[in-house]
Amino acid sequence: MSFQKLDDLGRRLEALEHALSILGADEATHMAVGGGEKRAEAMSNLAGMYHAQATAPEIRDWIDAARNEDLSEDQGLALNELERAYVNATCLPTDFVQRRTAATMRSEQLWRDLRAKGDWDSFLPALEGVVALVREEAALRAEATGLAPYDALMDHYDPGNRTADIDLVFDDLKSFLKTFVPEALAVQEERLARHPRKTLNGPYPIERQRELGLAAMRAVGFDFTHGSLAVSHHPFCGGVPTDVRMTTRYRTDEFLSSLMGVLHETGHALYEQGLPKDWSHWPLGKARGMGMHESQSLFVEMQLARSPDFWHFMLPQVSQYLGKEAIPGWDIADVLNEVNFVERGFIRVDADEVTYPLHVILRYELEQDLVTGKLEVSQIPEAWDAKMTEYLGISTKDDPKDGPMQDVHWPGGAFGYFPSYTLGAMIAAQLGAAMKKDLPDMGEQMRAGHFTAINQWRADRVWTQASRFSTPDLITRATGEPLNADHFKNHLRQRYGK
Amino acid sequence: MSFQKLDDLGRRLEALEHALSILGADEATHMAVGGGEKRAEAMSNLAGMYHAQATAPEIRDWIDAARNEDLSEDQGLALNELERAYVNATCLPTDFVQRRTAATMRSEQLWRDLRAKGDWDSFLPALEGVVALVREEAALRAEATGLAPYDALMDHYDPGNRTADIDLVFDDLKSFLKTFVPEALAVQEERLARHPRKTLNGPYPIERQRELGLAAMRAVGFDFTHGSLAVSHHPFCGGVPTDVRMTTRYRTDEFLSSLMGVLHETGHALYEQGLPKDWSHWPLGKARGMGMHESQSLFVEMQLARSPDFWHFMLPQVSQYLGKEAIPGWDIADVLNEVNFVERGFIRVDADEVTYPLHVILRYELEQDLVTGKLEVSQIPEAWDAKMTEYLGISTKDDPKDGPMQDVHWPGGAFGYFPSYTLGAMIAAQLGAAMKKDLPDMGEQMRAGHFTAINQWRADRVWTQASRFSTPDLITRATGEPLNADHFKNHLRQRYGK
Repeated sequence: MSFQKLDDLGRRLEALEHALSILGADEATHMAVGGGEKRAEAMSNLAGMYHAQATAPEIRDWIDAARNEDLSEDQGLALNELERAYVNATCLPTDFVQRRTAATMRSEQLWRDLRAKGDWDSFLPALEGVVALVREEAALRAEATGLAPYDALMDHYDPGNRTADIDLVFDDLKSFLKTFVPEALAVQEERLARHPRKTLNGPYPIERQRELGLAAMRAVGFDFTHGSLAVSHHPFCGGVPTDVRMTTRYRTDEFLSSLMGVLHETGHALYEQGLPKDWSHWPLGKARGMGMHESQSLFVEMQLARSPDFWHFMLPQVSQYLGKEAIPGWDIADVLNEVNFVERGFIRVDADEVTYPLHVILRYELEQDLVTGKLEVSQIPEAWDAKMTEYLGISTKDDPKDGPMQDVHWPGGAFGYFPSYTLGAMIAAQLGAAMKKDLPDMGEQMRAGHFTAINQWRADRVWTQASRFSTPDLITRATGEPLNADHFKNHLRQRYGK
Repeated sequence: MSFQKLDDLGRRLEALEHALSILGADEATHMAVGGGEKRAEAMSNLAGMYHAQATAPEIRDWIDAARNEDLSEDQGLALNELERAYVNATCLPTDFVQRRTAATMRSEQLWRDLRAKGDWDSFLPALEGVVALVREEAALRAEATGLAPYDALMDHYDPGNRTADIDLVFDDLKSFLKTFVPEALAVQEERLARHPRKTLNGPYPIERQRELGLAAMRAVGFDFTHGSLAVSHHPFCGGVPTDVRMTTRYRTDEFLSSLMGVLHETGHALYEQGLPKDWSHWPLGKARGMGMHESQSLFVEMQLARSPDFWHFMLPQVSQYLGKEAIPGWDIADVLNEVNFVERGFIRVDADEVTYPLHVILRYELEQDLVTGKLEVSQIPEAWDAKMTEYLGISTKDDPKDGPMQDVHWPGGAFGYFPSYTLGAMIAAQLGAAMKKDLPDMGEQMRAGHFTAINQWRADRVWTQASRFSTPDLITRATGEPLNADHFKNHLRQRYGK
């Protein structure tokens, strides 16, 4: 039976994926420093085996033959996703993949060096090379999928997302934020005048911060029989659904950045841990896409963990784990002053949830023009500065380090990924609004540290659905309406508005 | 070029081995408890890929063709070892391997359950099944290698070892030990009457024991840029040469078992870290075999770390890391009273270095008879008891738990492995004697905590030689004479005799 052959192939690919995921997490957490070269060699060889097995020509025949077999509904859905994965994996010729891998690796290495120096001019030729290849890739993916070039790139990260839909939602959000950011800043100024920011009372020993983070993870539902927390330079959530490898990093002068980071990554982890176990070797059993994944991390971070209800529960835990004198005299409002602080800034990854979408929309607009050829790489700094000035009122003129050189995505060839961040924030808000209808006492539950019903709601509507539906369909099914900016706008108004 | 094809294959196999080694070490150290099932599935699939790639029929053609190519001396040696690995991997038919894997897995699981109950009768049929398959395996390996059946099994673990040679050495050692064990016990009794064993002053916090262990590893030459120490239930030395994963376990009531275990595993680790890096993807670049590997761990543990000279250096470290009151009033003689304590016992893994070889020789003799069919499985308890009584003067009659059920080797089908332990001890003593000729101040160097020259000597003669020579040839080249029991006997006499 051909479906059985695909099923067996899925288990072999899952084994290689398992190895790559655990080796990747291990590299950032437990590997000896001198082990990197051999690790890279091993992972590159394993990735090669994966690619060879996932793109074998007979898979096309198996898929076609399986269409005529007597399949269950799940198997039928699995076949659709298998085909999508196969098309995505085979639509780029091997020699193109090799050229692209070589170019992006070189460009990323160069970027790491030149970014620190803010040397845009030296970096320009490398990025031009990458963009030329990305245009080629977009054309190849467009041909294979029948989509427009930029849509084909985006579809790779979030199946079903189209600029035609997202443009509308982002435009709505952008025009809202242009007036809302000044409003939120004024509200904040007024509030801080009445209730100034308090100082912390560190140092906060790492071992205690770790215990606090573990307690927060446990509270919001992380399953420690299927995952763990370690330390790495850049926090991530990796591993496999049965053994999720989460990381954080610690500073001893403050504890909030690690704690909020842990909560963010726990959102990713819950999604992975909640995926259907029986489908783990099928593309159907994977998390839907990057936007959906980010919605789950931002749900925990933004919808739950930056709310007054959550801190009603969390504040006593801080005293319990860090000591009574950790934040003497602080109440919930003091914490919210910190975790919900709004500020216009240059750097996306440092941005708060109010200004963050403007950073993303700027990139989304520019990368579409880069892919279509409306914009050339040499014109990026000027275009970037114009949009930063328009959207956030700050200029990056002559400051490429804090402007177009700040992110690894473009040097690494990842075009079509940026929108996921803000789509995630909007999906999270839309899920939060829908959840409140079903669980009107959601706030009280949080205050009591009860997250079971909150998690069950997301498990039913998102986690267990895995890749059954396209991203837009999954959103509509989970929330009862297509993606729109209203719920996120309401969320921001409520938290930061007058 | 055919050699190039073999070289490329070596790199792919190395990648799979790398994954299996790191995943195996990770499973015992950092994996979440619920991750085991998927990990086992992934590792079994990866092992299947390894086997399929390592036994592909075209490899035979490549080896034959490479014989006619213009190869360097190293490449010629590499080709020999590649062929040896290929013959060993292909001489068992796939359906036989599957039958054996199924039988030994079942038997091992049964053993874990029945051993605790000492239920030999229920275990008997499973072990009979395993022994029947081992006889079949020995015949298949004998046919492929031209060796006698038991030699063919042993050759798999230690290439070149033959019963014809080892019988002589073991007989010599056995007759020596029959009189020496009572002598050593009498000497000990007399010494302890004058200088009784002291009590420890625990508890010893794990974090401090860890620091002490790390200091000991560092002192004897472990390279922390290519390895690390973690905790596991059963201590091991795993990982890959560029990233050696060592483990230990801790008790808080005493610290010597963890420290001595760490030093033992460090001996294995130094061998792995000292292998030639350029050959890491060839069988030629691997450690020579189990006996040689054990000689390196026992060299550090027995030749170095249980000597007065070593403790001259180590004792102040104990105070430094565990505190001044850790072992108040202890001098070197007190430590040696503990680490060199001799005792007749039932259990091999608990045995001291004087009685240990008798446990091994007993098994070596019995398993030869089991393989040839001179002994049947049902006769093991009686034969075991007879030899225990003869060699160690203690009976295991009606006590299979502490008798033939104590080890995992036979339930797991590992016949021909046991001799490696005592061969390792003898090789270590022979290396120690040869080293003393070249480094007459070896003892003073240890007292000063200097291990560079000691390590360089072993690196030159053992580590960098990897699998260039058979085990017997490697021993002769490293020490100037064939393996014999004299140096080990001298070592025991000097440490434990009158």
